[in-house]
Amino acid sequence: MQRFVNDPDFVVEDMLKGFVLANPEVELAKANDRVVVKKQKQNGKVGVITGGGSGHEPAFLGYVGEGMLDAVAIGEVFASPPAQAFYDAMLEADTGAGVACLFGNYAGDNMNVKMAIKMAEDDEVEVKYVVATDDVASSPKETKEKRHGIAGGYFMWKVGGAKAAAGGTLDEVIAVAQKVVDRTRSICVGLEPCMIPAVGKPNFEIEAGTMEFGIGHHGETGIRKEELKKADAIAEEMVSTLLEDFAFEDGRELSVMLSGLGSTMLMEQYILVGKVLEILKEKGHTIHKVYVGDFVTSLDMSGASLTFIDLDEEIKELMDMSGRPVGMKNY
Amino acid sequence: MQRFVNDPDFVVEDMLKGFVLANPEVELAKANDRVVVKKQKQNGKVGVITGGGSGHEPAFLGYVGEGMLDAVAIGEVFASPPAQAFYDAMLEADTGAGVACLFGNYAGDNMNVKMAIKMAEDDEVEVKYVVATDDVASSPKETKEKRHGIAGGYFMWKVGGAKAAAGGTLDEVIAVAQKVVDRTRSICVGLEPCMIPAVGKPNFEIEAGTMEFGIGHHGETGIRKEELKKADAIAEEMVSTLLEDFAFEDGRELSVMLSGLGSTMLMEQYILVGKVLEILKEKGHTIHKVYVGDFVTSLDMSGASLTFIDLDEEIKELMDMSGRPVGMKNY
Repeated sequence: MQRFVNDPDFVVEDMLKGFVLANPEVELAKANDRVVVKKQKQNGKVGVITGGGSGHEPAFLGYVGEGMLDAVAIGEVFASPPAQAFYDAMLEADTGAGVACLFGNYAGDNMNVKMAIKMAEDDEVEVKYVVATDDVASSPKETKEKRHGIAGGYFMWKVGGAKAAAGGTLDEVIAVAQKVVDRTRSICVGLEPCMIPAVGKPNFEIEAGTMEFGIGHHGETGIRKEELKKADAIAEEMVSTLLEDFAFEDGRELSVMLSGLGSTMLMEQYILVGKVLEILKEKGHTIHKVYVGDFVTSLDMSGASLTFIDLDEEIKELMDMSGRPVGMKNY
Repeated sequence: MQRFVNDPDFVVEDMLKGFVLANPEVELAKANDRVVVKKQKQNGKVGVITGGGSGHEPAFLGYVGEGMLDAVAIGEVFASPPAQAFYDAMLEADTGAGVACLFGNYAGDNMNVKMAIKMAEDDEVEVKYVVATDDVASSPKETKEKRHGIAGGYFMWKVGGAKAAAGGTLDEVIAVAQKVVDRTRSICVGLEPCMIPAVGKPNFEIEAGTMEFGIGHHGETGIRKEELKKADAIAEEMVSTLLEDFAFEDGRELSVMLSGLGSTMLMEQYILVGKVLEILKEKGHTIHKVYVGDFVTSLDMSGASLTFIDLDEEIKELMDMSGRPVGMKNY
């Protein structure tokens, strides 16, 4: 793939430069240029942060903003930010009411967040965390806690951020973010691999004519390799995988997110989501809101993730609160 | 490219099905399933419409919504909608105050819009139009009126739509939309070609190691083929091309849009825009708002367009009015 880059080893620096120039509501932390922070702080509000590897834009940095995240620790492409970056993000986000660190379940992030929490404790900054585990393909249901976090993290940040903005305590923010995680499931399909700029070629393969059902956001092997199917058949397979995992006994009220992985056209995303919504309605589920677009990507991978959240009144109310994450501006 | 499609000859139908299911604020017109309309009509408001070929999503259909477009005529991939679709969009958008048809300058659209206007006249629906001509690469400055419309159309729809929502008359909407066109310039760079789903292979080539400077949104030949450069050098070339065309004599207040063409990563878009903003500031220009993302695409082309608008107080105020185009939701 031909790409707009300068030095492939410095794509993250270059991206951050553009990101803060384009979004005057945010800046890089003075203590750490790998931490993006919301400029306007609100004393007494619980700080809400996340962090993760780059290459998933607009996640994670695009979700900094009013009603959502206060700070984000930025890693290299597909690599966890160091503990120091999570720690600096925690200090930036703290205004005395503690910090909720809401992140996706990956080994490096887990280790570095926990180290950062210990560092913050020494400064008497209270930090609690919730780990997103929405990717049903990454571990069986019996070991749900081992699952990775993918696009479903968006709902955790949105609801946790809204609860904090509404004056919730740290424990309340953590409780509702955990409830969101418990009620969210995602599944991903890969059609073509992505390329890490500094590597210059795909670090995994998807054979032409096949697809990887359940692929992870860094090319992790999925549930099965299959013949490439038509969009409707793929949508059916994604929906049935999620519904099986939820094991609902009756019609539910759901919100649906269809996220492109990078080079998937919006046209394709609407084609997929049309079939998804048709099936859900046939099965007696009610749809609250539908999110279509590139919410959490995987560099330039061709593929899509599908996420369902099983709503309750509290989650729905918080998800419907207005917010201004800079990566999701309503122009 | 491996893609999520069913029958490649029916991608537009399948996309429209998903689009209206996902966005309950819009529907297909009863008289014509190739016209997307905003459900909620406002009596006495000037109707604002556009139309064009598919494959540019979120344009054009994503810009239907509060404060922006009332109806959109949908063409096949890269093909103008027929006159009948423009006509049906006009009838749908008319609530007695006339209709502003704001579209991009392409031969088929021009012909079909003018035919539709005649048909609407027979129904005593008054329609006036403005044609976007922002693509500086598509014709020299001396024949500016022959230039094509690309991403700069967004500003025309946004400002025209805001003026109509604020109670402007048809003549006022047309005047301000024309002013936006006169003050907007775009330039596009292509790195890799796109593929029309029903064709199954790219209908033009960009040789590896080269780029097409000034490429059109359907692969139209640009100003020159060049060796593929680093992002900063490409940004410099894009900026100087636009500034030369504007021929400003002093520092201006500009808004900037950097739109990906389909498979360009958001990371790359921020890398480009960082350099663009740096140069503009060095040259003494003030930046009002920066728009980064996929606003007007070209299927899965790898490339980007850069648009500047030379603001005045009226345009700025209208651009800052809130709106809810369904393709640009603030979640």
